[in-house]
Amino acid sequence: MDFTKKVFREVGADAMLTESADLRLYLTGYPSSFGFVYTDAQESILFTDPRYAESAKAAMRGQRIGVEIARSEDTVLDYIKSKKIKKLAVPFERTAFPQMLSLRKRGFKLVDSMPAFTDAMEVKSGEERAFIARAANAAEEAYIRLLGQLREGMTENETAALLEYEMRRCGAEDRSFETIAAFGANTSVPHHAAGETRLKKGMPVLLDFGCKVGGYCSDITRTFLFGKDGADGFADAYAAVLEAHERALGKVRAGMTGREADELARGVLRGRGLDKFFTHSLGHGIGVNIHESPTLGPSGTRVLREGMVFSIEPGVYFEGRFGIRIEDSVQLTAQGAVSFMKTDKKLTVL
Amino acid sequence: MDFTKKVFREVGADAMLTESADLRLYLTGYPSSFGFVYTDAQESILFTDPRYAESAKAAMRGQRIGVEIARSEDTVLDYIKSKKIKKLAVPFERTAFPQMLSLRKRGFKLVDSMPAFTDAMEVKSGEERAFIARAANAAEEAYIRLLGQLREGMTENETAALLEYEMRRCGAEDRSFETIAAFGANTSVPHHAAGETRLKKGMPVLLDFGCKVGGYCSDITRTFLFGKDGADGFADAYAAVLEAHERALGKVRAGMTGREADELARGVLRGRGLDKFFTHSLGHGIGVNIHESPTLGPSGTRVLREGMVFSIEPGVYFEGRFGIRIEDSVQLTAQGAVSFMKTDKKLTVL
Repeated sequence: MDFTKKVFREVGADAMLTESADLRLYLTGYPSSFGFVYTDAQESILFTDPRYAESAKAAMRGQRIGVEIARSEDTVLDYIKSKKIKKLAVPFERTAFPQMLSLRKRGFKLVDSMPAFTDAMEVKSGEERAFIARAANAAEEAYIRLLGQLREGMTENETAALLEYEMRRCGAEDRSFETIAAFGANTSVPHHAAGETRLKKGMPVLLDFGCKVGGYCSDITRTFLFGKDGADGFADAYAAVLEAHERALGKVRAGMTGREADELARGVLRGRGLDKFFTHSLGHGIGVNIHESPTLGPSGTRVLREGMVFSIEPGVYFEGRFGIRIEDSVQLTAQGAVSFMKTDKKLTVL
Repeated sequence: MDFTKKVFREVGADAMLTESADLRLYLTGYPSSFGFVYTDAQESILFTDPRYAESAKAAMRGQRIGVEIARSEDTVLDYIKSKKIKKLAVPFERTAFPQMLSLRKRGFKLVDSMPAFTDAMEVKSGEERAFIARAANAAEEAYIRLLGQLREGMTENETAALLEYEMRRCGAEDRSFETIAAFGANTSVPHHAAGETRLKKGMPVLLDFGCKVGGYCSDITRTFLFGKDGADGFADAYAAVLEAHERALGKVRAGMTGREADELARGVLRGRGLDKFFTHSLGHGIGVNIHESPTLGPSGTRVLREGMVFSIEPGVYFEGRFGIRIEDSVQLTAQGAVSFMKTDKKLTVL
């Protein structure tokens, strides 16, 4: 699939210029810290600096994208001027104000390419889904290895670091975001930063992690008990979250809105009087970014489509006591959602 | 030191609004994924969401910064309107185009706060330098632990992952950037992405890494040989880079421009006919960002000042053969540069 064409044909401009690192990675399959992708009806060119020129040429996803050297934006803009381009598409929300002014000063009529990117990036190709599947496998394998190494007295920070190390030993290029490791009452903070809290018998443990393969992310959360239940009501709450998770996974379909998908899980928790403790959305799209469109939540107006990849992650959080979240990365097929994850989600007591 | 006042008194506006994560961290000392810092002559307020409210209140650097809950930018802008603010400072280069339009639509006259941030952030307080010192120590201790665990057959990726793991065991909150690990001829690529190349006897090894403590970064590069010299000319090139490094470290002074500091090292390499292989700048400022102002390089026009923290990292790169870079994080004092690093920089053969 030619991603530059897929986006370009939707933007309605003479040409398209893309600098933002994630969008560049999406278009080319090639990660780099500096560069511009130029696309018009005839050609696509990645302008990058000499450090990347050789490896970029080898990596262009098999697409017909030329690679040229540019040391500054000026080189690129001079090229675009030389092609007599008038209407130029750039992603407005990824373009800083001074850059916007400099484009206008050069006489370009600017069009927003971001809606076309969002639309194209939401639905993943088979190749993209294969990368995400590998990223999911590496994360799960690492998780299993970690479970065998967890010991009383380990800190959250050490646990997160060890899990990230194991992900890379299991084939990940890198983590897809900073690993969340929470012990005990810290599990009740949905985005707790791993700190110096030490693991004790009976504590709930929440791990939210993922990794990257081929530039694509996976995202998974598991909550379990380290030793016998030290938190009153944990098992019941876990069963409710798991039921919400399984219902969303089983019932989500292409054609629903993100809001309708969210309600599948939220309704289960509401039935148990727990919806007020489910303080975030059900899920989010996953791709070259760990969070991207669509949103599966009360504000999710976009319609889910076959080929989308997103998280399903209901959770409940009881301040000062404990929190539970169960998250898989899944793909939406004609038959419904299929999880990339294989580990059992029944309550684990280590 | 009150960082909000330090920046605000330079911006020349009625009030200042700061959203960018790094600038928010600088102002408050508190890392968060969502928030706005509002500052006027009377008060500073961190608007953040309910997830962060409690921990933010506890963490305000001892500054008088209030914490308020906001779920969207609108809440914050309504507050600013209610204070009859006309001239509002925002960091232009960190503000996306649609946000700029929405601020203008609300009738604010906009002023760029970025120059004031750059100026204030360049010179570090004692507290900031203490965090950087701890981040430097953790990185060096981890490096020493790694050396004892390096084995023939390990991949670059595994080595990078192990070094990151050890940094966190040595007191780091996190890495400060994605660790570069390069073996053999890969060392000749200044920003090589750690891959599947395996370590063999006689290979040069280049590691560029750093970590975070209190939100502040360290940055260090070491190049050494794994077993006896397998690369012709390595020892001579190493001696030249080390001489360039030591000369810059010994001679850099407050009052020089970044260009003049760069020339201290570049001149040494030129004297040996190696300057054309020194393809990047001598260094960069280090703080809450791994790269910030000033630039020590041929384009460095800013004047170095006491209290600045930056890298000194000359290098030479011979394509397809090997590369060498020697980097310390240093602080500039009245007596010159003082390195945060303690490890010996003589050529190491493991």
